[in-house]
Amino acid sequence: MKKIKIGLLGCGTVGQGVYELLKLNKNKYLPLLEGTELEIVKILVNDLKKERGDIPVGLLTTNPYEIIHNEEIDVVIEVIGGTTNAEEYILDAIKNGKHIITANKDLMATKGQNILEQGNKYGKVVRYEASVAGAIPIISTIKEDLVSNQITKVMGIINGTTNFILTKMFAEGRSLDSVLKEAQDLGYAEADPTSDIEGLDAARKIAILASIAFNRRVKLSDVYVEGITKISVDDVNYAKQFKSTIKLLGIAILKENAIEVRVYPTLLPLTHPLANVDDVYNAVYLEGNAFGDLTLIGKGAGGLPTASAVVSDLLSIAKIINKGSIEVENCSCYLDLEIKKIEDTSSHYYFRMVVVDKTRVLSKIADAFADNFVSIDSVIQKKLPDGKAELVILTDRVLNKNMQSAREQIENLDVVLEIKSVLNSEKEY
Amino acid sequence: MKKIKIGLLGCGTVGQGVYELLKLNKNKYLPLLEGTELEIVKILVNDLKKERGDIPVGLLTTNPYEIIHNEEIDVVIEVIGGTTNAEEYILDAIKNGKHIITANKDLMATKGQNILEQGNKYGKVVRYEASVAGAIPIISTIKEDLVSNQITKVMGIINGTTNFILTKMFAEGRSLDSVLKEAQDLGYAEADPTSDIEGLDAARKIAILASIAFNRRVKLSDVYVEGITKISVDDVNYAKQFKSTIKLLGIAILKENAIEVRVYPTLLPLTHPLANVDDVYNAVYLEGNAFGDLTLIGKGAGGLPTASAVVSDLLSIAKIINKGSIEVENCSCYLDLEIKKIEDTSSHYYFRMVVVDKTRVLSKIADAFADNFVSIDSVIQKKLPDGKAELVILTDRVLNKNMQSAREQIENLDVVLEIKSVLNSEKEY
Repeated sequence: MKKIKIGLLGCGTVGQGVYELLKLNKNKYLPLLEGTELEIVKILVNDLKKERGDIPVGLLTTNPYEIIHNEEIDVVIEVIGGTTNAEEYILDAIKNGKHIITANKDLMATKGQNILEQGNKYGKVVRYEASVAGAIPIISTIKEDLVSNQITKVMGIINGTTNFILTKMFAEGRSLDSVLKEAQDLGYAEADPTSDIEGLDAARKIAILASIAFNRRVKLSDVYVEGITKISVDDVNYAKQFKSTIKLLGIAILKENAIEVRVYPTLLPLTHPLANVDDVYNAVYLEGNAFGDLTLIGKGAGGLPTASAVVSDLLSIAKIINKGSIEVENCSCYLDLEIKKIEDTSSHYYFRMVVVDKTRVLSKIADAFADNFVSIDSVIQKKLPDGKAELVILTDRVLNKNMQSAREQIENLDVVLEIKSVLNSEKEY
Repeated sequence: MKKIKIGLLGCGTVGQGVYELLKLNKNKYLPLLEGTELEIVKILVNDLKKERGDIPVGLLTTNPYEIIHNEEIDVVIEVIGGTTNAEEYILDAIKNGKHIITANKDLMATKGQNILEQGNKYGKVVRYEASVAGAIPIISTIKEDLVSNQITKVMGIINGTTNFILTKMFAEGRSLDSVLKEAQDLGYAEADPTSDIEGLDAARKIAILASIAFNRRVKLSDVYVEGITKISVDDVNYAKQFKSTIKLLGIAILKENAIEVRVYPTLLPLTHPLANVDDVYNAVYLEGNAFGDLTLIGKGAGGLPTASAVVSDLLSIAKIINKGSIEVENCSCYLDLEIKKIEDTSSHYYFRMVVVDKTRVLSKIADAFADNFVSIDSVIQKKLPDGKAELVILTDRVLNKNMQSAREQIENLDVVLEIKSVLNSEKEY
């Protein structure tokens, strides 16, 4: 039986998941493979001695070129992650005639264009479904299943760590620090959680999704990013009063031939399909000009869930290999749309501030908003000790730059002691 | 510019949606079509005189053979619906060299196998994404995006009419009859609503999904069906007490190499991803052996949402035509798995009954359950006037035949005045 031979770069959770899945569902794949068979022939690891379940030691190597330059290998699966070696290995593998599957969001969000173009140049397929939202087939859904639409909005919970933290903060009223520590103990958060809680991980993923949805290459550096470190239990409690939750969202919007792309913690009404996506689940909400809206909810990480995406890509490449006619359509970013500065975007905003508890304070603040063309949607005022009050204001949809100038003006009011937080709010959807 | 020519059989809501969408997104499709262009050249209608927006009257015909036997047509889109003429037209079109796109669930759930086999025989592609769940790309998600998995469960809200009715019954505490009338007035329910409220429409769709998910042809006649007509406001109120909702679900399960496939109203805990899918939205919840679970929520009907699925299929066929190498993989039902009788399936069950309000009544009923190996999960008892009481019992997961025999034994107890309803309940998921 003809074999399609696979080299695996990396053998962590995802790599082991891929090995396991190919074994688990072997009998299901046979009738799909038109008389061929999938076989992992080499696996790159750092340490030959580490325990790796039932993976035969004979498959392991510490030399990447035994895979990249291996003439019998058809497909290279890169699950090392990060940007240290992955790019070099992938580009070298493409030049050496390998089709590529990668789960590497860091790489695709920064060097994606070059990798896809090199794939085009050498007639090799590059697939990366696993790089965003784990088991949720969001790339293929946008690229293939919804291809009849102009996608106008992509909004996703695409970082499991922060979603776990925010879910716990809401359910248990605990502080971010306390929940973060638990997430680290459970292995849901890294020892250095910066990339997750500062929103960078989500930013990489929304850059990839925006590129695919709008046919315009969007890089990590194009994404406006705020993390969740500023969210306090007070914000959680006020969000509840507004019948809302707070989620870290990656948002990409196409409006009037310009793109907006950002990551920030956002108040979301409990009726929104993303509002009840909890714990380490990921979800993506899409809007398009024919389907209306569509939401996908699934597991964003883990060995088998991520392997689900990798192996679906692999079966699709196997089909292409078996047909003998290689159709390469890796890069679909043929448009050159403007990416808006954050100042020029609009949203609803949530302000929480501590003020002096006197008459006319609210009117002074309302005037400051009005001076900057910011209209107010709703207000909660709460007495604090020592002659202070807490004021929470939701605005209508206004320009970000008007919100910023209102914020500055309010900060300078003598009756305002401190602006505790300013968050975004998705009211209409 | 080379044209891919399309004949449209039918010009109702969906047909007009297809025409409109091809115009709306023409510029988006051009770069995908490799120098070809999509053109609707003929549309079959019943009445040439009816108002159809900006569709040129010159495109219309009342003679199906101007499309089916038209040599210049490459793709036939069937959006007539029903089983009167659609099968004959489609089979004739395949023999005459046309690729087929159909939105016809009635046809695919009864004659699907033959149509797909004829497509295979004549080397023509048959696509039917629009036949289930409107804009939700559920067929492609199962067939392509999750192909790496063995799907083990498909559970869907796949009938918008009944979901609208149940949503209103829950939100407003109104009776089925009253909400049904409103749905008819709004155009959400047919004048003869039998197919929707008796669960037949959902049964057709779950038959199609089960066939695709389990690679085993499942027909409408294989599906066990109960509709929503027996649901009363009392059931709605008890469901709320169990922190649950009631949804009409199509359920297909693969367990120990056998298939279970059924449609029935089901108590669903409010924490389930399908529980908050309201109004005319559709949703499908999937389980697989790698991805875990995945939920898709979107619009189940309407002109443009359904056209979204039809035109995505069309673009995919256009790509195949442009490549010149026709790959036909229409029918994937190569397995011969047993389909279980409903008696041999298991579920949690909800019993509501009116009993004589005396001591030992509960123990007699509990004994009757126990005699039939049905264990009880929870009980609500409520006093009624005239020495009666209402008893609501949720069972653990038990065999359907044991539930049935318990039901018979309980019905014959002299202390039981009436079993008001027995519903299914999805407790674990």
